[in-house]
Amino acid sequence: MFVTFEGPEGAGKSTALQAVAAELRTLGREVTTTREPGGGPLGKRIRQMLLEEDAVSAETELLLFLADRANHVETIIRPALAAGHVVLCDRHADSTLVYQGYGRGLPLDFLRAGNAFATRGLVPDRTLLFDLDPSVGLARLGGREVNRLDQEPLDFHRRVREGFLTLAHEEPSRFVVLDATMPPADLAAAALTAILR
Amino acid sequence: MFVTFEGPEGAGKSTALQAVAAELRTLGREVTTTREPGGGPLGKRIRQMLLEEDAVSAETELLLFLADRANHVETIIRPALAAGHVVLCDRHADSTLVYQGYGRGLPLDFLRAGNAFATRGLVPDRTLLFDLDPSVGLARLGGREVNRLDQEPLDFHRRVREGFLTLAHEEPSRFVVLDATMPPADLAAAALTAILR
Repeated sequence: MFVTFEGPEGAGKSTALQAVAAELRTLGREVTTTREPGGGPLGKRIRQMLLEEDAVSAETELLLFLADRANHVETIIRPALAAGHVVLCDRHADSTLVYQGYGRGLPLDFLRAGNAFATRGLVPDRTLLFDLDPSVGLARLGGREVNRLDQEPLDFHRRVREGFLTLAHEEPSRFVVLDATMPPADLAAAALTAILR
Repeated sequence: MFVTFEGPEGAGKSTALQAVAAELRTLGREVTTTREPGGGPLGKRIRQMLLEEDAVSAETELLLFLADRANHVETIIRPALAAGHVVLCDRHADSTLVYQGYGRGLPLDFLRAGNAFATRGLVPDRTLLFDLDPSVGLARLGGREVNRLDQEPLDFHRRVREGFLTLAHEEPSRFVVLDATMPPADLAAAALTAILR
């Protein structure tokens, strides 16, 4: 079973992912936790490249993210699924559609074709959308180091939220929308329920 | 004017490109010479990555080449064209269609969409195809260090040649096919004529 955790920074995805992984392990399941970008062997180098180069266009960035995804799916996700693991992945293809498409305005049809090419057609069995008003999410980040996306204007983050909700509306059998204003323990419990369901 | 030099390794592309650049400069033209992959700032890092990682899938490799192309077009080719230079580029988008498409069997429609996305629609004004029987080209490489593509079986290189000739047939106004068995001086002269025409 392949489960992706999507939503903005500050919504508690990573914390919930770790809590869900621990619960699944106590239930006797083998679990692989991973993330994008940067979860695969090439990904660490690509991530470093994006951090160090300051003038990368939206097109170049997208193609590097897709290369990272292709390598990650091939070397980490597919082998774990083949070994019978539950794979919990912090961000995946939907983040590309939403941040690069709804956020930056790159063409959705190319992004969809790029995702399908990079994953060779792998689609998550379930996607948990941690939905949160962007002003709340950004305020929560507070002291944390922000990345380039977090520095985008609030309007960008509103388009991102709308994008995620649109995708969830289009694929109701894959998406489960979680209210990320819940306390962390409740949010993790809701995430676990959505996976076990 | 944007001119690309295409064809197999061992066909004399790089030698002819330097000779043409020298001739154009004596004619008073500003010339930028470059190459793919690896001609842009990110490209050197991507090239290094591909050399050091030995188990990169065809999909991942293609996406890295496209990221390199996007960065190269944006930072090197378009600024040089905007400054009025003749740009001579050793390999470009057609190599992707031919090596990854005709050679490795990746879907041509995605490769075409990827090229258009990476270049934001930039297409060469002229493409010189250095056509050569693959057995001749491979024999010429002889002492030189071979890369991963050169180690592919002869059948792969035959498909590559057919691919290049098919593209040239489809776009006769852009392509000029040169017989790469000519002596280097004649080949450079033919290349210059094709550009000045």
